[in-house]
Amino acid sequence: MYTATERTQVRRHKERGRYDAETVNAILDAGFVCHVGFLTDQGPVVLPTAYARVDDAIYLHGAVGNAMLRSALEPDAPVCISVTLIDGLVFARSAFRHSMNFRSVVVFGRASKVDDDAEKVAALDAIVDHMAAGRSADTRPPSPTELRETLVVRVPIDEVSAKVRSGGPVDGEEDMGLPYWAGVLPLSLTPAPAVTDPESKVGEVPAYVTAWRR
Amino acid sequence: MYTATERTQVRRHKERGRYDAETVNAILDAGFVCHVGFLTDQGPVVLPTAYARVDDAIYLHGAVGNAMLRSALEPDAPVCISVTLIDGLVFARSAFRHSMNFRSVVVFGRASKVDDDAEKVAALDAIVDHMAAGRSADTRPPSPTELRETLVVRVPIDEVSAKVRSGGPVDGEEDMGLPYWAGVLPLSLTPAPAVTDPESKVGEVPAYVTAWRR
Repeated sequence: MYTATERTQVRRHKERGRYDAETVNAILDAGFVCHVGFLTDQGPVVLPTAYARVDDAIYLHGAVGNAMLRSALEPDAPVCISVTLIDGLVFARSAFRHSMNFRSVVVFGRASKVDDDAEKVAALDAIVDHMAAGRSADTRPPSPTELRETLVVRVPIDEVSAKVRSGGPVDGEEDMGLPYWAGVLPLSLTPAPAVTDPESKVGEVPAYVTAWRR
Repeated sequence: MYTATERTQVRRHKERGRYDAETVNAILDAGFVCHVGFLTDQGPVVLPTAYARVDDAIYLHGAVGNAMLRSALEPDAPVCISVTLIDGLVFARSAFRHSMNFRSVVVFGRASKVDDDAEKVAALDAIVDHMAAGRSADTRPPSPTELRETLVVRVPIDEVSAKVRSGGPVDGEEDMGLPYWAGVLPLSLTPAPAVTDPESKVGEVPAYVTAWRR
């Protein structure tokens, strides 16, 4: 269990807050794009980027000059990482009670540059495997030059909370008889058949792609 | 066309930057969860929330005491709103060139409280209709009490950029002959059959739900 802090305490719908590593990790492992919030002298910036979780850290990567990662690596710069998965639209009888089903994680922390080559390679493998499990063993690994051109940062998962909403609409008693449809439209990120590159030397789509699901 | 500023100029893969209202609006209208970055005295915070675009503004809403909206409404507080749509995973022959297909928008601005009741109702209708077009006319509208309990904020779309990646993997010439599958796994947020609430007085799922797509 993580300890709720002033920043991670879920305030709205407290009952939806989760602070256990199992829930946090399951959400982080099911997503693959996070939104990173960092500070600039003009205010906060939020950008989407790929990531992977390894044990109790999140790894981000980019080019050596990447402005987001550079800002996150400023001394004592706080960063915030959000991962949100949408599970459905919730149609209540009243407009006021419309909602969404979702699973989200918010991590607060400080980023540090990964200098150790073994940790760096492991993090980059994890990011590729996070797209599709097993892919890093079925691709050309990073060359020494590519490794030098890539910045990898580590954000420890320490100050964190998850928030989960599931289930149907919750209307007030006085609205239950209203003649409006109430229910949920489940949504999920779904693959279409893979499109092989015309110049791919391998025609058969690998099992980790055909069997892909989240 | 919007004017690129220091903050909205796309730096990495400049060719993916878009600054026209048509592209920006199409992305904002296709998404329905945004990530809002705002400042607190402990650093930046990024939270997911529903939104709607009306003309050249984004509207957010929440309870009157909502900490995110309160922070965004502090005098001169800069906010950043990101909307990201994932269109596919891009498998290159080299780990280094793995990528994603996506459409994203980043808006910088300042939030203002919507005090005018007509604008407030229109914004709340837009948020419901943004979930499913036409729903606001098929639900109980907000009561005067609900309106008083709801805070609506407006962020003008002015300083904004979009970024779009599409198409297949791009490997270096020297990697084109490698024996690894290369291609794209298209992804989209897809509905499953709607689940009617057991206590719904209307059993038939409305057309705006059965026909839902993004």
